[in-house]
Amino acid sequence: MTGDGRLERLNGMLRRRGFLLPAFEIHGGAKGLYDFGPVGGRMRSRVNQRWLDHWLQLGNVVELSCPTVTPYGVLEASGHVGEFSDFMTECTTCGEASRADTLLEGHHANPDALKRDELQALLTAVNPTCPSCNDRAWTTITAQNLMFNTTIGAGDSGRAGFLRPETAQGMFTSFNALHRHFRERLPFGAMQVGKGYRNEIAPRQGMIRLREFNMAELEYFIDPEAELTDDLTPWDGRPMHLLSDMEEPAVMTLFEACKKELIRHPTVARFMGITHDFLVDVGIDPARIRFRQHEQDEMAHYAMDCWDAEIQGSYGWVECVGIAHRGCYDLESHEKATGKTLRARREFDEPRTTVIDGWTINGSTVGPTFKGLAGQVKTAVEALPKDTSFPCKITLGNDEVVEIGQEHVKPNQQTIKETGEWYIPHVIEPAFGIDRIIWHVIDHAYHETEKNGEHYTLMRLASCIAPVDYAVFPLFEKDGMGDLAWNLHQQLCGKPGIVSMYDASGSIGRRYARADEIGTPQCLTVDHQTLEDGTVTVRNRDTGEQVRIHPDTLLA
Amino acid sequence: MTGDGRLERLNGMLRRRGFLLPAFEIHGGAKGLYDFGPVGGRMRSRVNQRWLDHWLQLGNVVELSCPTVTPYGVLEASGHVGEFSDFMTECTTCGEASRADTLLEGHHANPDALKRDELQALLTAVNPTCPSCNDRAWTTITAQNLMFNTTIGAGDSGRAGFLRPETAQGMFTSFNALHRHFRERLPFGAMQVGKGYRNEIAPRQGMIRLREFNMAELEYFIDPEAELTDDLTPWDGRPMHLLSDMEEPAVMTLFEACKKELIRHPTVARFMGITHDFLVDVGIDPARIRFRQHEQDEMAHYAMDCWDAEIQGSYGWVECVGIAHRGCYDLESHEKATGKTLRARREFDEPRTTVIDGWTINGSTVGPTFKGLAGQVKTAVEALPKDTSFPCKITLGNDEVVEIGQEHVKPNQQTIKETGEWYIPHVIEPAFGIDRIIWHVIDHAYHETEKNGEHYTLMRLASCIAPVDYAVFPLFEKDGMGDLAWNLHQQLCGKPGIVSMYDASGSIGRRYARADEIGTPQCLTVDHQTLEDGTVTVRNRDTGEQVRIHPDTLLA
Repeated sequence: MTGDGRLERLNGMLRRRGFLLPAFEIHGGAKGLYDFGPVGGRMRSRVNQRWLDHWLQLGNVVELSCPTVTPYGVLEASGHVGEFSDFMTECTTCGEASRADTLLEGHHANPDALKRDELQALLTAVNPTCPSCNDRAWTTITAQNLMFNTTIGAGDSGRAGFLRPETAQGMFTSFNALHRHFRERLPFGAMQVGKGYRNEIAPRQGMIRLREFNMAELEYFIDPEAELTDDLTPWDGRPMHLLSDMEEPAVMTLFEACKKELIRHPTVARFMGITHDFLVDVGIDPARIRFRQHEQDEMAHYAMDCWDAEIQGSYGWVECVGIAHRGCYDLESHEKATGKTLRARREFDEPRTTVIDGWTINGSTVGPTFKGLAGQVKTAVEALPKDTSFPCKITLGNDEVVEIGQEHVKPNQQTIKETGEWYIPHVIEPAFGIDRIIWHVIDHAYHETEKNGEHYTLMRLASCIAPVDYAVFPLFEKDGMGDLAWNLHQQLCGKPGIVSMYDASGSIGRRYARADEIGTPQCLTVDHQTLEDGTVTVRNRDTGEQVRIHPDTLLA
Repeated sequence: MTGDGRLERLNGMLRRRGFLLPAFEIHGGAKGLYDFGPVGGRMRSRVNQRWLDHWLQLGNVVELSCPTVTPYGVLEASGHVGEFSDFMTECTTCGEASRADTLLEGHHANPDALKRDELQALLTAVNPTCPSCNDRAWTTITAQNLMFNTTIGAGDSGRAGFLRPETAQGMFTSFNALHRHFRERLPFGAMQVGKGYRNEIAPRQGMIRLREFNMAELEYFIDPEAELTDDLTPWDGRPMHLLSDMEEPAVMTLFEACKKELIRHPTVARFMGITHDFLVDVGIDPARIRFRQHEQDEMAHYAMDCWDAEIQGSYGWVECVGIAHRGCYDLESHEKATGKTLRARREFDEPRTTVIDGWTINGSTVGPTFKGLAGQVKTAVEALPKDTSFPCKITLGNDEVVEIGQEHVKPNQQTIKETGEWYIPHVIEPAFGIDRIIWHVIDHAYHETEKNGEHYTLMRLASCIAPVDYAVFPLFEKDGMGDLAWNLHQQLCGKPGIVSMYDASGSIGRRYARADEIGTPQCLTVDHQTLEDGTVTVRNRDTGEQVRIHPDTLLA
């Protein structure tokens, strides 16, 4: 963090100008809940839309929207009920809850990787001060589940539920609808932009650790045995900054990293490239992006490979995107919990024939012995493995148990011809933290400079996500200039996808300064010449250059 | 409801084709929670974006995004903790919870307007059967708050909170940030598209009554004393179907309805016009829109006027938009609860001078009597009203109580000059139920017909919100037609805002049928001629007309 107060000035500006503000502040606010304000709201929706447009280009992904309120069973199946938790301790003096690992930062290289006993031992040994009251008196640590819980329905009909910790689960449980939509052809993907929730024990760092956040996730379903055709050539000219779990930090192309098996799946590599493109497109400085591979002990137990896109800013390097190869874990977990199948079919090039050795009945003995049950005995016997020894007891379809002797059976060989098989697809998931990305876009765009001896700030936002496209100023609100400017502003607002801001307060210089501060790419001024020839002055935010144009060129 | 099974067939299609599906169905689902699937997800986001673009045209509105998790105090101030409830009764046989008013439909004209005692009496008298088990054994009715509750934070630091029942409250509590953004110039508005939650006792009617729903609300802040300049001429040629609380149903223009004072505020009338435009734009049949004014006893106690836009469809006439004049209720409630001001300033044309009669001290007696306290006595005496009689006891700023006699005071007149005043703005709120609108768009677009003696369905969706813009078909996946078609599909997907779907399964006729069923406006077929001259066949969904074009015209 820079020590010159830049972060404080930036945060003050974001609040004053309505980018980001603590939510419900007049009611005392609530930690970890933020508003996107009159300026930030538009930026958020443009980044979300840009993200969707970016991934839609793949041509085989669709957008879903699933509920945020999620029944208990879904998140039990996904493992969140059991494993989505942090270790908490409470100050017995002031009652404030803290994350045990956070209290021990500086006393251990990686306290959040410690097991419960180790963490408790370290807490007892260090006995840190409470960040709220400075006392040193802690309760025993407990695992605190991080999901917001609620009840769906009322009275005795009410069922336990949670706010979703990620958008992913609704997409996994929709697998069969997706499979049908894509006419059973893999690979395909589902994506969702929406809210995720994490009831943090002690939120901090502004937009970095929120209790309610904006996520964008893609679940891309692949056949693990299909030939891989990922084209990495678009990124050949752009070596990436990679921190793998095997090597020293390196700068190399995605193609090289795949060849060296640092990146273990070419689709993961391709998605890293697409992620890089997106981040640069919305305005992240490419020099401050790196990809870090999860260590084996850091990775979720089911993940086969995981790379984070980290962005460097005022809080250091921060994880903003995770690109994980999740194997078949998710679909398999929901299959197990529900007894329903979530599978795709793979056709064989040639039908496969399998010969299975087993048993069938000896009709001449089974008929007289089992009479009406003979049919059920046949079915049960044919399901017995080759190594069964007789006599043995078997259970029939009607739950009756009978004893089968050697005399009732004879060896049998079945030939099964199959044209294909059902399998559980693998999933590759790029998961984006939209708030963290917006924060870093702002952090990288924010420039402090001087103008006429005064402090001056400028946001060099990419045009595609700038909250305001045009600021329209009447030089004065008289002689018809005010009306002309307002009409131009209104016409611009009538164009879908365009936002204009009308500003008539103070000098033109002050108005330029206000527009620059929120990153408006172009300012249009209606002046005396406009009254004569209809042209307006267009000023470029970054160069300060001014030219006269006819506004019809913007309205076409 | 039509009795010919159309609704069942439509719902079946929506599910099969991935428009709308019960959420988390493999886990048994949860009533009142729906997914927008592979087709519906795109449609939802297009309708949301269209809504934002539509209102942005006003030129003085901005988009916000506030958290859905909301602290208790905010919803206590808004009245939701106390008043947002339905009367519930539970079946003592099966435990199923029901809304008491729903059970009594058919036994009273308007059971949801009944007071608790009346409803209980009617329930006891009618003793209806349980919709779940058919028994007749009900618990005493109780008021059930309809908000999903949760806890923000963990342990003793945890605070009560709810999922927001509407998006509005976050916009009211952001008033000061909005006022600053618009440089203190009213009118201005804030809008928000997002989730709202209502923990229905017994959800029913598919998309009409959800527990988690998509809302779009605009809070438009006005000065109640400002001159009204709403222009209603854009709707002069379009008389509206109005059900006012004063007259028989009427068809008249918004201008006439304002003149007759059926609509009590011209901004409400203008927003009714803009709402009508939006509904028609996204594909609602204008003949099936009407505006119904709330009866005095139906309106929230604070509302000054309220008109619902109702749409007619398979469930009859359904409220889909509410346009309410809320007066100063909301901002005033948050002011009272927080002690913070949420006000705008109104400058007077001329400064106003007020003369106030009162008292001041008689220096010659107060000085010797009160010595060092004389200053505080002066302040306290000048705050006394004119009708004070002496001697009297008064409390000074330091909490000391002194007795003031007639000899210590003399009459005084103060002249106060004010250039303006602070006031609480009024709010006009159009609130849209996006799910209900999407449902009716689909209902109105769904056409059943016959083709070659077979049942055939066609969705005549407006191009601006159709989930898929183009379907691309190779006549066969051979001779390079498959690759050409896939490339065209990919290029179309690369255009922001465009979604293409590739389909190579079955005959062209089957593929047209599948595209028509989900409302794809245009199908492009790559055939043998494409290999020669690069042109493709474009088929229009509604006319069936086919022409050959060069795809570059679509990609420009």
